[in-house]
Parts: sequence; C-alpha cells; structure tokens
Amino acid sequence: MRTRIILLGSTGSIGNSALEVARRYPDRFEIVGLAACSNVEGLKRQCAEFRPRSAAIVDETLAPDVTARALEVEKVYRGSEGAQALVVEEEADIVLAAMVGAAGLSPVLAAIRSGKRVALANKEPLVSAGALIMSEARRMGVPVLPVDSEHSAIFQCIQGQQSEEIYQIHLTASGGPFYQRDRASMSGISPDEAANHPTWDMGRKISVDSATLMNKGLEIIEAMWLFDVALDKIGVVIHPQSIIHSMVEFTDGGILAHLGPTDMKFPIQYALTWPERVRAPMARLDLTTMPPLTFAKPDFSEFPCLRLAMDAAHRGGGAPAILNAANETAVEAFCEGRLPFLQISEVVEAALDQVESPHEVTFDTIMEADAAGRRFARTFIDQAGVRV
Amino acid sequence: MRTRIILLGSTGSIGNSALEVARRYPDRFEIVGLAACSNVEGLKRQCAEFRPRSAAIVDETLAPDVTARALEVEKVYRGSEGAQALVVEEEADIVLAAMVGAAGLSPVLAAIRSGKRVALANKEPLVSAGALIMSEARRMGVPVLPVDSEHSAIFQCIQGQQSEEIYQIHLTASGGPFYQRDRASMSGISPDEAANHPTWDMGRKISVDSATLMNKGLEIIEAMWLFDVALDKIGVVIHPQSIIHSMVEFTDGGILAHLGPTDMKFPIQYALTWPERVRAPMARLDLTTMPPLTFAKPDFSEFPCLRLAMDAAHRGGGAPAILNAANETAVEAFCEGRLPFLQISEVVEAALDQVESPHEVTFDTIMEADAAGRRFARTFIDQAGVRV
Repeated sequence: MRTRIILLGSTGSIGNSALEVARRYPDRFEIVGLAACSNVEGLKRQCAEFRPRSAAIVDETLAPDVTARALEVEKVYRGSEGAQALVVEEEADIVLAAMVGAAGLSPVLAAIRSGKRVALANKEPLVSAGALIMSEARRMGVPVLPVDSEHSAIFQCIQGQQSEEIYQIHLTASGGPFYQRDRASMSGISPDEAANHPTWDMGRKISVDSATLMNKGLEIIEAMWLFDVALDKIGVVIHPQSIIHSMVEFTDGGILAHLGPTDMKFPIQYALTWPERVRAPMARLDLTTMPPLTFAKPDFSEFPCLRLAMDAAHRGGGAPAILNAANETAVEAFCEGRLPFLQISEVVEAALDQVESPHEVTFDTIMEADAAGRRFARTFIDQAGVRV
Repeated sequence: MRTRIILLGSTGSIGNSALEVARRYPDRFEIVGLAACSNVEGLKRQCAEFRPRSAAIVDETLAPDVTARALEVEKVYRGSEGAQALVVEEEADIVLAAMVGAAGLSPVLAAIRSGKRVALANKEPLVSAGALIMSEARRMGVPVLPVDSEHSAIFQCIQGQQSEEIYQIHLTASGGPFYQRDRASMSGISPDEAANHPTWDMGRKISVDSATLMNKGLEIIEAMWLFDVALDKIGVVIHPQSIIHSMVEFTDGGILAHLGPTDMKFPIQYALTWPERVRAPMARLDLTTMPPLTFAKPDFSEFPCLRLAMDAAHRGGGAPAILNAANETAVEAFCEGRLPFLQISEVVEAALDQVESPHEVTFDTIMEADAAGRRFARTFIDQAGVRV
C-alpha cells in the first residue's frame, strides 16, 4: 500500500521539494491532502497534478475564491482551523508539516492526537512547544521525524545506537552569508543580501534566520526535544561547506557524521520512507571534487541570536515561544524594510527580557506567550522609530 | 560478569593496545589467555600483570624456556598448534586475533568452531580464507568483529542500517608516507622510511603495507567478507588526515562517516564492548583544531599493489591467499634489506600470474596456496639476484 501523505505548506520551498519526491515515486506515495497559506494558483496546479481528496487554504481572506470545484478536490477547508480539520479528518499515514512559523503548532498537535506520524520541516512548533508536542507524541506512540537536514543527519547517525551513549551532538552551521564579517560591516545589509544563502536554496524566513544564526539557535532547541538530550550536550560547529550535515559524538569518543548533497529532497525522502531508504536518482556526492572540509567555533559576539536562543532554551517554559514570536515579527519587519538587520537581535533580546514567560507549557500558555511576544516586538519596532 | 578475553599476538602493537584497554576496565574485562609469537620476556611481564590462566608461545624454538611456572600460569601451550589448542580449551567470551600474517588462520577458525566470538585485528586470515571463515561463523552463529580502524568505522556506520541499502563503501586511506611521490623517486626507500607512517603508529609489516598501499588492497578484500558486499561496491578514497576512518554511502545518497582520533585503542575497545559503547578516558577529537579534511582519488599506477589486490579479489579462489603469501614474503625480504621497495609489487604480481590457484576454498587448499605463494616468492627474490 502506498504511503498516504498530507502536506502542510505545499506551495513553499519544502512543499515543492516534497512534491518532487512524491512525483518520482508514484507507486510509493499518495498525496491525500494539500494545505497552502495563500498561494491559490500554486495550490490549484498541485491539486490538478496530484489529485488529493482534500485541500486547505489557510488565508481566510482568500476563502471565497477557493471552492472544491475550482481545486477539483472532494473537500476544501479554509483558515488555520481548516488546516487542522483537514489533518484530523483525512485518512493518512504521515503529515509533513512544512508551514512557516508558529502557525504550524495546532495542525502538528492535531496530527499527533489523531495518531498520524509527523515529519517536521517546520521547526517553530518544537521550539515553542517542544515539551507539549513530545509528550503528546509519546502518549500516542507516534514518531516525530525530522526533516531539517541537520536533524535528519543526527537522526540517521543515532539509528541503531543507544541514546544514553550520546556524548555530544555537533550541529553544523554554514555560518550563513555573513560568516567572518564583523558586526559593524553588517549594518546596511538588505533583505536580498540576507536571503542569499551560500550553500542552501531555501525560503526567505529561514534564509534570514541563517544569516543571523537564529536558525542554528532554533535548531539547538529543536534537537533537545527531538532527541531528548540536555542543552549542554548540543554544540554548534561552523562548517562553511555544508557537506557534513551534523555529527553525533558517542561516549567512547567515536563520532558519526552524515554527509550528503545540499538538497532538501534527500532529508524529505528519508523522513517519508524511514526506516527504509529508497534509491535516490539525484546527483550523488563526490568528495574528491569537493573543497576541503573545514570546521571552526562559532563567534557568539558577532551573532548574538545564537546566544539568545540558548538563553531561552535554558530558561525554558514560554521563553523559547517568546524568542520565536519576537524573531518572526522582527524578520518580517526586516524583510519589509522596516527594521535594520542588526536590530533583529535587539528586538528578540528585549522581548526575552521584558515579556513575562509562563512556566507551564500548555497549548494555551504557549499561544499566549507567542501573542505577547509578537505584540511586544511590533510595539518595540514601531516605537523605536527605526529608519533603515 | 566480566568479558573473558583470549588475546593472540599479545606482545605486538595491537596486543599492547588491547592490554591498555583491559587495564583501564578491570571490572569489565578479564584476560584468560595470552599468546605471543616469540617475545618471551614481554609475555612474562604480561602474565605477571594480567594473571591469565593460560599462555602460549608460538615460536617452537623458544619452547624450552617457557614453562607454566616461569610464566606463573596454570597451563602453557607451545607452537602454532599450541595457540590453537589454547583457543579451544580455555573458556572465553571473545578471542582477539592480533597475530601478524596468515599464521592467524587456524586459531581464528578454532575460535569460531568452539563458538567464541572473534575480534579480528589480523586481516590476513580473512584475505586468504574469507569464504571459509565467514561460512563457519554463520554456521556457528558467531559474530566476527572488525578491529581495523577502517572496518570498525564501517561496522559502526551500518549499525541499525539495512545491508541491502549499502550503495558503496568508501575505505579511506592516508596514502601512506609516500603519498604524492612518483614511482621513480621511491626506488631507494629504506625499511625505516617505509615504516614511518604519517598518521598511525603501527607494527612494521602493516606500516610497509601502508606504504605500498597493499594494506588498503587487503582491506578491500577484508571488507568484502566482513560486510558481505561485492567488490565493485568498495572504493578507496585518499584522505591524508586520517580523521574520517571510512564511510558508507547508502542507496538514497546519504553517507555516514566515522571520525575519531588515530589511536587503535578506540576500535579495539569498540570490538570488545560491542554492541555497547563505554566511555573512553582518552583524548577526544576537536575538529576545530584539525587541518582541513581533503579527499582524492588513489593513483593505481603509482601504487600497483592496490590494483593487484583488487585483481586477486576478482579472481577469487586461492588468488588472495597467494597474493598475501607473496606479499608477506616480499615485505620480510624488504625489511631485511634483501629486496628494493619497488620490487615488492613485482614479486606479488609474478606470484599471482604464475602460481596455480585452487578454485575451492578449504583450509587445506588455502594452506597449500599460501605455501606455494611463499615458495614462489622466495625463489623469485633469490633468483632475481636482487641488489639493494
């Protein structure tokens, strides 16, 4: 029987790569549900090709245009509650969550609570509410599979290994487009410069997060939850070539590393076929034609977002949700030209310091912390009277 | 209960490292038998420290000096048949075979046939008689665990993976002390130069084999048998830093690599504790202080031994045993100043071409092929009237 997939965030970068994987193995994968945020035309084209039973459009303002008939599906869902309803009502084996930002939390929880395996490309839900997601996944006996290349690498390194024998996880970071630049020289960076990642072709939000190294900070928090390891067992190593996607060092001194091409189709496919591997007809890595692999310690002073994320993880409770909400708001303002690049970290730092964080992690406390973080960040950005 | 270890080749380089590992964990390991080739004084010291029940000295000419009383053991064995008898008669959980050369074959078979797990540091038995060893191991349900750093690396990379999902094994090679030298400049190489390995501190035979790259050729054959993969699925990549100890590429394009310090105690300990890992109090690898990791294709024309080993593997039957026997004889002549470095490969090539190889692999056919290979090589070296 084919693996029935619900794909959330189908018109984004990860969504399109996931559909390329599905297109390659029509006898292995069946797309049963597609949800997009606001790209109605893209969703229409995808429905025409993959013929899912259900589709959802999250942006409510676009709802009138989107009918089951227009999309040629049996059922159409609207709004963010619609995405959640699609996940619950449609029969599927796996939900690939590739929506951007904290909006992915409720559909991810809905997937787990309806007993569906989750492949998580969207890191913000785990960052904001990792304790909640993982305890629900344990309760339901549902695996949460990583799609991020780093976490897929770690997951592959620990297959067949004992988790208590993990000594240190080494998350690799390319360093982003501004590696080895000093902070002063980064003041005039434009959104286009920040989105121009040296080794990965990704969506805009994650590219900016890579430029500030906030992305790596979020990945630390994500790794804590996915692999149930303490913060002090997760380190970051700068590896500008992005050929080693991450490493796990074991208690006996041995290190396993995962290497692969910088193409998200590889970790997406692994999450969809795990625990099996399926032959990939894509370009293979030839190490003998690659640049030398180098490694360096990250510089926390040039990239304060990395330190802020670790601070938030250390504080726990709602702090990571506030960090994430303030960061999403600040990155959006930066992309719209309303906030200079270097002030992204200032917005996040202020939010972490000044927004009250709940101790307990429930859906409601996290949603409140998220909203409070966004409110604070918006006001902070407006009041600062920022000029770019 | 402690793991009871019989150590064959206890006074050699691997033997000493194994005893360092055992010394570190007295509550985990018990040395119950020690066998040395000819170093009586060394064996005496080891017996005094580790108090095994049995000991063996393989060199028969030294037998008179070696009494149970002198070694303070309950039982002493003599000659190569003595080593085999020790393996059969002494109760143990694991036999660590670290003897040099094809002489290790009969004790390894004896260990397997008496149901004892084998940790194989001595590659020649698998090279000469891999079909026999592995079929006996399967029949007895006994694991054959690799100790070579490359094979330990591969073994660690495939834990929890499906063997049919192996696409290619990439054996890494430092390139030895003469990497990037052309063949003409190697004519006057002395045994001391050849034994001076750039990254590993090893015994003399294996160091010379590393300099000719025969060692890597033997490792290819060893990997075929240990991991049950076809010759064309095993490649060699030059990696001068010896930090990645080998890699396994899977069908889906993902590559797992094992990294670690260049210290044989790590793979020895892994073989002794597998499937567990035990905290190693040794220096850990810090990639950020290491040189860049580079990779290159091996040059078969400068290092003909690598091609010869692959030829022998391709021919099968007794060919690898003849290759190995001729190589052992040639390396010995080289170390004694009776054969120039570049002629090691000529001796091996002539033996492969001219010694008749049995098709069937049994203990007797392999012992005959081994003897014929040695006879041929000795005559070839003498008749060539070589001057160094």
